[in-house]
Amino acid sequence: MYFTKMHGLGNDFILVNGFREDAAAVVKNAKKLCDRHLGIGADGVILALPSDKADVKMRVINSDGSEAPMCGNGIRCFARYVFTRGIVSKTKMSVETLAGIMKPEIIIIDDVIEAVKVDMGHYSLLKKDVPIMGSPDEEALDLEVEAQDRKYIATGVSMGNPHCVIFVDNVDGVPLEKVGPILENHPLFPKKTNVEFIEVKGKDHLKMRVWERGCGLTLACGTGACASAVAAYKKGIAGNKVKVSLTVGDLMIEIQDDRRVFMTGPAKEVYSGDIILAGL
Amino acid sequence: MYFTKMHGLGNDFILVNGFREDAAAVVKNAKKLCDRHLGIGADGVILALPSDKADVKMRVINSDGSEAPMCGNGIRCFARYVFTRGIVSKTKMSVETLAGIMKPEIIIIDDVIEAVKVDMGHYSLLKKDVPIMGSPDEEALDLEVEAQDRKYIATGVSMGNPHCVIFVDNVDGVPLEKVGPILENHPLFPKKTNVEFIEVKGKDHLKMRVWERGCGLTLACGTGACASAVAAYKKGIAGNKVKVSLTVGDLMIEIQDDRRVFMTGPAKEVYSGDIILAGL
Repeated sequence: MYFTKMHGLGNDFILVNGFREDAAAVVKNAKKLCDRHLGIGADGVILALPSDKADVKMRVINSDGSEAPMCGNGIRCFARYVFTRGIVSKTKMSVETLAGIMKPEIIIIDDVIEAVKVDMGHYSLLKKDVPIMGSPDEEALDLEVEAQDRKYIATGVSMGNPHCVIFVDNVDGVPLEKVGPILENHPLFPKKTNVEFIEVKGKDHLKMRVWERGCGLTLACGTGACASAVAAYKKGIAGNKVKVSLTVGDLMIEIQDDRRVFMTGPAKEVYSGDIILAGL
Repeated sequence: MYFTKMHGLGNDFILVNGFREDAAAVVKNAKKLCDRHLGIGADGVILALPSDKADVKMRVINSDGSEAPMCGNGIRCFARYVFTRGIVSKTKMSVETLAGIMKPEIIIIDDVIEAVKVDMGHYSLLKKDVPIMGSPDEEALDLEVEAQDRKYIATGVSMGNPHCVIFVDNVDGVPLEKVGPILENHPLFPKKTNVEFIEVKGKDHLKMRVWERGCGLTLACGTGACASAVAAYKKGIAGNKVKVSLTVGDLMIEIQDDRRVFMTGPAKEVYSGDIILAGL
């Protein structure tokens, strides 16, 4: 099976052309393929498949074998992959996913693919949407949370998944591996939450460290960057266009008046390979 | 750059043909190549190079960029790689390494490469050789060590590097992530030590879990399997030929009268790929 290894800010994927390869065998072997010592190693496998609703269909299989409805870093890699392989020839394409039709756009400057822009859907700060305990129609702007005998002021944001955004003076000084799991499981968040600590570098620049719900410390979280930009914008700390710096690079976040959020970021091709699935 | 990904019991390597590829560029980029999110991902890079002393020369670059003199799991992968690529056409070959000339042997049964046998050198139990504090010419057969308020009886073995072998009834019940670092840094071992917990399954079968010096929990450690077989043999628990079961497979260890130890184990090819070094 031919594959291409790509990553979006360190969130890495095995891309497979399902028009040519045996998609069912790929799904069946996804967990083995993602094993970082015995297989290829990745956070997930992404399949390009025919669609009768859009230009192409994307399936994302996580490293545990489960299927993800969508993935912000993954769809940037996917868009670059199907464009450079000639599977889709438009820079602005429609992609069928389990979370609906997405419309990623390839950003080309001087004949070079610079980035991919993705519509990340609408944000909400309503407690019923995040969800957060308390008055359902209230915005979760100033939540008091406590972890390790320290109090934090948090903003609750839904980007389709829950986020707990906390502004601090020095993001590198936060003991995230200790505070993260406490806040992830905080009783205020009945469906648990992703946790973002943010240092404000300027009106148009945030620095983020993230603890992902169910994953722990990760290099990048697309919806986390969106939620953090939304929290900063709603609190008047930042404008509606902001750069969010993560461990290995930046995402550009743009918030529209209709609460729609666009994310623009890199998608990097690392190498291509050839593996015999039966040998795994 | 063309490469092949292989592993020996989960200890995984990027194999590169230095006769064709730019060896200096590979060494320079080894750390980036081994990055599991941004590169190919591996425990190390292994280069096949011309030798004027042996059939072929092996260089092992660790994932931190440093060079390793030798590697038990790595040389099995290396031997299979150079044999199947036609770089060396003999099943019993000589390999120049920083630790001297090694002589791995490809074991072929019914036209299939079943395993690779490697001479792991001589063992010693003398305290000066391991090294262990105390009378230098005494064998380290029954050391009392303590970790987490529990006393263990350990055997000290040198396989060129130090090992602390402890026999227990149930190896899965040992809290290795807690006990390992305490014993690794135990004052008895002035150069620190690898730590092996062993469950005896029979006269010819041991089950091992290992804490590697400087690495922590790993899936497999070739010298650890050898040291454990030596300790069991010297204590009369096992014979001179023993199977050691690790997390993802088995190693066969054979101890000769002249204190020489042979290890036979698998070397698996996972996939081949093509990467542009300048893009890393």
